Amino acid sequence: MKIYDYFRSSAAYRLRIALTLKGLSAERHFIHLRRREQSAPDYLAVNPMGLVPALETGGRTLTQSLAIIEYLDETHPDPALLPHDPLDRAWVRSLALAVACDIHPVNNLRILNHLRDALGQDEAARNGWYAHWVAEGFRGLEAMLAGDDRVGAFCFGDAPTIADICLVPQVFNAERMNCPLDDYPTIRRIAAAARALPAFQAAEPGRQPDAE
Amino acid sequence: MKIYDYFRSSAAYRLRIALTLKGLSAERHFIHLRRREQSAPDYLAVNPMGLVPALETGGRTLTQSLAIIEYLDETHPDPALLPHDPLDRAWVRSLALAVACDIHPVNNLRILNHLRDALGQDEAARNGWYAHWVAEGFRGLEAMLAGDDRVGAFCFGDAPTIADICLVPQVFNAERMNCPLDDYPTIRRIAAAARALPAFQAAEPGRQPDAE
Repeated sequence: MKIYDYFRSSAAYRLRIALTLKGLSAERHFIHLRRREQSAPDYLAVNPMGLVPALETGGRTLTQSLAIIEYLDETHPDPALLPHDPLDRAWVRSLALAVACDIHPVNNLRILNHLRDALGQDEAARNGWYAHWVAEGFRGLEAMLAGDDRVGAFCFGDAPTIADICLVPQVFNAERMNCPLDDYPTIRRIAAAARALPAFQAAEPGRQPDAE
Repeated sequence: MKIYDYFRSSAAYRLRIALTLKGLSAERHFIHLRRREQSAPDYLAVNPMGLVPALETGGRTLTQSLAIIEYLDETHPDPALLPHDPLDRAWVRSLALAVACDIHPVNNLRILNHLRDALGQDEAARNGWYAHWVAEGFRGLEAMLAGDDRVGAFCFGDAPTIADICLVPQVFNAERMNCPLDDYPTIRRIAAAARALPAFQAAEPGRQPDAE
């Protein structure tokens, strides 16, 4: 397997956690997003969407972190990253998608660059945009997590799932952008529990070979 | 089952298609997004994220259209909305997520409202934003679809999957916003094939009881 990675990408961070939890290793190729290497013809031939991560395996190139992680979970089922019961799977997937659809894409690097370059928004306005969507998303996520009887040490019971895999990079980035997290005690508790695990630690942006 | 729906929501449109393809019916409750009913305490008690759709079933409330559709596919497997092989499942999921993560959330109503209300962007700027992200996403999706040997009448072979279920509402909305689609012949061909199916037609926004 070969992974296309960037230390600071939230989506690549998710995949790094999943690979490590599964005990899988992959050859790593780094795509420098701030140097816009994701838009170079070489990389668009790998992933036409121009995003990381991508995973080459079985003669195919897989894209979209959650699709890749579901693939890994189907082909390397131990430890499981989704529960068994369909209602519980939907719960875990809905938490993962709340981050992956409703918080992260609105705040990623290409959006912030577009706010600056096309709409002329200064740094304060861009930081305000970022904080607004983190607050909007975390308010909802906190209510979901605080109100469900399936939550344990992690988003579902006492072992990490794809929900925690999505939550931790989002919390990491919110901290990096100095977003206040006081109002989200359940999110903070779960993220702290997950970040105490070696697999989550090994995937942290600052520990990657391409970290700056 | 009970669905929380809004005729113009792309995500609700996806769920309507899936329910109809599966031959399932659900009691329908309409949440008027332009009147901000999604932010009323009554609805936040149903879905703390303040988004549609949501589905009540089995004593639980499911959120996030893709999590709900995967649940329906697991509990009502015929007709299947995902292929059997893990690599093919990843392909179909990656197309669905390319729409659901990288195009739709950046352009949905709450983002356009925030561009207007918090950043003072006029209608021309908001329409430019919309068109930019459709073009960016469809350029990548077209290259993915045009370059993969698994594409048939639909995104995977000759029967609809969750990829087509996500693609059609996005094409519908791009047309409504007058985005040029000339450069995406494969997307247009697949969307036309899907929209010829009764299940996709029955789910169209204009045919819903709450349509305006």
